[in-house]
Amino acid sequence: MERGVLITFEGTEGSGKSTQINRLADRLRCTGHTVRMLREPGGTPIGEEIRHTLQHSENNRAMTPETELLLLNASRAQLVREIIRPALHQGEIVLCDRFYDSTLVYQGYGRGLDLVAVKAVIDYAVGDTRPNLTLLLHVPLDVSETRRLARQSTASVQRDRMEEAGRAFFERVERGYRALAAEEPDRIKWIDATQNLEAVEATIGSLVEPWLRVG
Amino acid sequence: MERGVLITFEGTEGSGKSTQINRLADRLRCTGHTVRMLREPGGTPIGEEIRHTLQHSENNRAMTPETELLLLNASRAQLVREIIRPALHQGEIVLCDRFYDSTLVYQGYGRGLDLVAVKAVIDYAVGDTRPNLTLLLHVPLDVSETRRLARQSTASVQRDRMEEAGRAFFERVERGYRALAAEEPDRIKWIDATQNLEAVEATIGSLVEPWLRVG
Repeated sequence: MERGVLITFEGTEGSGKSTQINRLADRLRCTGHTVRMLREPGGTPIGEEIRHTLQHSENNRAMTPETELLLLNASRAQLVREIIRPALHQGEIVLCDRFYDSTLVYQGYGRGLDLVAVKAVIDYAVGDTRPNLTLLLHVPLDVSETRRLARQSTASVQRDRMEEAGRAFFERVERGYRALAAEEPDRIKWIDATQNLEAVEATIGSLVEPWLRVG
Repeated sequence: MERGVLITFEGTEGSGKSTQINRLADRLRCTGHTVRMLREPGGTPIGEEIRHTLQHSENNRAMTPETELLLLNASRAQLVREIIRPALHQGEIVLCDRFYDSTLVYQGYGRGLDLVAVKAVIDYAVGDTRPNLTLLLHVPLDVSETRRLARQSTASVQRDRMEEAGRAFFERVERGYRALAAEEPDRIKWIDATQNLEAVEATIGSLVEPWLRVG
């Protein structure tokens, strides 16, 4: 009896995900909805420890893709059971910055791990907790790269493993997102995020609207 | 072309695993073998971070069994690829304090996770890296409990999640070890660890001996 709605946000770096999640959360709260904002990996104390191991370990370069896949899904298994399921049960709207589609495209398509195995591990981690709606914010690779580099140079953000993987990697990620969107057009909505913020926000609003009547 | 030997040690707390691993390592080194001693979870810098998350997280009680299973196997995937495979390739004798049989009995039999799913995650983590020999040091539950409690009170060891799980849990673990030993009698050797240290050491020596001619 899950009465809430699980909405996930996907997209490459620089697609404006964070901005749009915040705007949507604000708007939903203003109209009286209870909103839970989460991010992956992380979102729980245990998940944040795992996030740290994934992103800031001194031994980051030694991490194998298999280890990475299992760590991401350990964080996810915890997030689903500790936070997402109870929140949905309470009728909340859960907005998650990345969810398992990211694993499929970054670890599966990007790193080249076997997709069947990746899906099996994800299935184990999430069980029957699936997004009702996935908003895929797309910007072309060049835009993503420019925005990503600008962010790094201004904020001197520590480059993580993903960001060092190079252009061929991001091209595979892009192909992965396209493949997923084609496989599940009802759930995954492809949004042109080169539009201005307000236009993207309006598109998101219209896609989310039908789900607000649930519960 | 793996020329080394992977020997794993299993058993409940208080079975004398650590002592016997050290004695075997010393003896093998004295006879000119290159020995690598490892422990699970852990054994790599990344694995030790995961071990910390598993055992000393402030949010330990919130951890779900599924998260625990995935974390254990993330540590294992790293250990297998970063250490065990290269060591075996170099012809080393690898002694591992716990390996995937522990996960089968503690998480599968003990916590009641679905054994097929547990095996699938393990298979993903280890691939074709399997122990050549597994030494299962058995002491009856009462002996294990007495030794375990004595250790806690003298060394004020922090009680971890496993040790707080209670007697019924350890009875299921015991049944799990018996089931595994029955399934794979060629690999898993059941050793009566209530014998004195020297007798156990002699038994282990005779079981390991045939493997020393490999490579």
